[in-house]
Amino acid sequence: MAAPLKIAIAGLGTVGVGTVQLLQEHARVVAARCGRPIEITAVSARDRLRNRGCDVSMATWYDDPVAMAREADADVIVELIGGSDGVARETVQAALEAGRGVVTANKALLAMHGTALARAAEATGVHLAYEAAVAGGIPIIKALREGLAGNRARRVYGILNGTCNYILTTMEETGRDFEDVLEEAQHLGYAEADPTFDVDGIDAAHKLALLTSVAFGRPVDFASVSMEGIRHVTAMDIVHADELGYRIKLLGVAEETEHGILQRVHPCMVPKNGPIASVDGVFNAVVVEGDHVGRAKLEGRGAGAGPTASAVVADIMDMAAGRGAPTFGVPVDRLTESAAASINTHIGAYYVRLMVLDRPGVFAEIATALRDAQVSMESILQRGHAPGEIVPVVMTLHPTVEAAAIRVLAHIADIDAVVEPPCMIRIEDL
Amino acid sequence: MAAPLKIAIAGLGTVGVGTVQLLQEHARVVAARCGRPIEITAVSARDRLRNRGCDVSMATWYDDPVAMAREADADVIVELIGGSDGVARETVQAALEAGRGVVTANKALLAMHGTALARAAEATGVHLAYEAAVAGGIPIIKALREGLAGNRARRVYGILNGTCNYILTTMEETGRDFEDVLEEAQHLGYAEADPTFDVDGIDAAHKLALLTSVAFGRPVDFASVSMEGIRHVTAMDIVHADELGYRIKLLGVAEETEHGILQRVHPCMVPKNGPIASVDGVFNAVVVEGDHVGRAKLEGRGAGAGPTASAVVADIMDMAAGRGAPTFGVPVDRLTESAAASINTHIGAYYVRLMVLDRPGVFAEIATALRDAQVSMESILQRGHAPGEIVPVVMTLHPTVEAAAIRVLAHIADIDAVVEPPCMIRIEDL
Repeated sequence: MAAPLKIAIAGLGTVGVGTVQLLQEHARVVAARCGRPIEITAVSARDRLRNRGCDVSMATWYDDPVAMAREADADVIVELIGGSDGVARETVQAALEAGRGVVTANKALLAMHGTALARAAEATGVHLAYEAAVAGGIPIIKALREGLAGNRARRVYGILNGTCNYILTTMEETGRDFEDVLEEAQHLGYAEADPTFDVDGIDAAHKLALLTSVAFGRPVDFASVSMEGIRHVTAMDIVHADELGYRIKLLGVAEETEHGILQRVHPCMVPKNGPIASVDGVFNAVVVEGDHVGRAKLEGRGAGAGPTASAVVADIMDMAAGRGAPTFGVPVDRLTESAAASINTHIGAYYVRLMVLDRPGVFAEIATALRDAQVSMESILQRGHAPGEIVPVVMTLHPTVEAAAIRVLAHIADIDAVVEPPCMIRIEDL
Repeated sequence: MAAPLKIAIAGLGTVGVGTVQLLQEHARVVAARCGRPIEITAVSARDRLRNRGCDVSMATWYDDPVAMAREADADVIVELIGGSDGVARETVQAALEAGRGVVTANKALLAMHGTALARAAEATGVHLAYEAAVAGGIPIIKALREGLAGNRARRVYGILNGTCNYILTTMEETGRDFEDVLEEAQHLGYAEADPTFDVDGIDAAHKLALLTSVAFGRPVDFASVSMEGIRHVTAMDIVHADELGYRIKLLGVAEETEHGILQRVHPCMVPKNGPIASVDGVFNAVVVEGDHVGRAKLEGRGAGAGPTASAVVADIMDMAAGRGAPTFGVPVDRLTESAAASINTHIGAYYVRLMVLDRPGVFAEIATALRDAQVSMESILQRGHAPGEIVPVVMTLHPTVEAAAIRVLAHIADIDAVVEPPCMIRIEDL
């Protein structure tokens, strides 16, 4: 058997410890599968003395991960620190410049600096692998870069954030509202103390930007991702969705349109019997629509020590076996700066919930606003009759250009009897 | 860019033509993704003069694929002839012996001779790739061999035959019986004139044997697969399944048991809301349960020119890019001849339908037979009351060792009032 692949691990949090444990537990089978042992020669983390429940005494300790990336006796640096800048970025940069392969789970870093880092990897002829950055244990980056590489992608979409999916699933099962379920998720450790990255769609957008780059061969373009989180989704909307035959999911969608590649993250109503609606709780799923393969779906756990370590180790094993691919599927200079479409050009159906003062004539005012904007309504329903009180009115709009839908909603919001900003959720046949 | 990878294609049926078309249509992006062009230098098929709707005039024609495998100016031989023996086997063997990589879609060949062929590939240091042999366009072999390689598999299961899935889905949707739907599927081209390989579970068993080998690191062991097809499933059973909360699917299951690795292909009742029940029509799906990743599911089209060519081309691109893995995940001498468990040791719940002469005392006789065998019944229901006539009686049995279930069913079959052999379908919580 060949000489060991030597790795240095930066960051010993949940995923770092999971990676060490997996490599130790499965050392024999991992070596058999990649043709050589994997040896952890160095580690770095913030607190040397903390008991982490794993043995790293065989590894050289570095207080400074950047120094480790430069100097350690290692072929590959595994970056599990996190964050789009600062020490994580410096560590990866230093490793690539030193001609060491990098395995990372850091979606924020790659979403912000992916193209530059890919270039740095190419400059020294090493690989930058990040399977764990997108959809946890699901081997979706490998599937796009290799397993489905004969296809031209038409659309890639999926549930990319387990925290949001858990919150939406729990809201649906219990009828409770967002804030209440979020708090519980924080207690259970499914959501961070600062939940912004998850519930505002930023984390999903980071992942979508990476999927888009690989699927469509474009430089990573996080800035073009349209982002909307789940804070405005109410228990009432979930009930309405159910009655209309839908479930509400936070989706990331990247698709070819006549205006360019459109990347968007937002809550969607999806048909109950479609490929996405059944993905519940902390599971993630990614659907690839390719021109030859048709629709392929990959589903699995999107986070947690086990699934994420599974992806990290798969990347390490690829490097041990000498397998690799360009970071985003093709070399950086073959990535194409194709146009980015704005969400305003999106054409889709819409669910709109208005909170309306129940008095005669309101429907006529709403209908007039729609007619004037030439936006076509599929249905409108006032839920309950309570003259003089506030009642929800639920509309669905036929497929409409988003800009027109937004414009007409602004007019509707101006109607006196409409007492809250309209709640709009896109309806997708996914 | 590096020199082209030269390939020779043996077999120009649906998949062969699909492969040529894909490579021609996507020549530029394929070259960008694997770092070099792919050039078809030779082809072989039965009838040189047939118009296939694709241009192979740039390739050298061979009447004899075995000669082509030996002599053509090619790095890789793509075998799309089919069949477990004869010319397909000779072609692959000749190519490997000549030190050429092989890409094949031939599940029967690998199920019967996979270990020997893997050895032949290792002897000359080339790769034998067969993504297209299992589950069409779904990159499940790559997922098991690489993307999930850090895991120890506990169980692998799935819907591996699109023809059976199409027939069962159509029976369910239309209420029609097996023979009727089969005939229609044959007219539509979804089933072969001789449907034996599909409807008797042989094709699914070939695929399962390959999945088992990669997932559990054992030599391919087709002989140990317990096989049962779908011919005995009636429209009545599908209705009963629905009432019990199940759908009927032909599953292949490979799992670790205390008696060894159990491989089985048979119709199953699976819960309607589980990960398998929603896979309809010509779609396939494979679920991998790994010790770190948890449950991961891959779903997509299981057959057809496009999906199969997608998988063939992915394998060719891996070879062009210099990526590869041992045929069954580890070198042949690292495959472990672990014990194979018999289906008799399977422990599971059962659905049993009896056709019974409606007269007093029959339930008592059935209940006595179960009591004597110490097999525990969950429910029993006579469907309709028609004294003196034949009525269906539906039982479900609590989890029982299969050998005991089979024994008690033999006793029940001997009861005078039971007028047909019992129909037994396993119930799985998958």
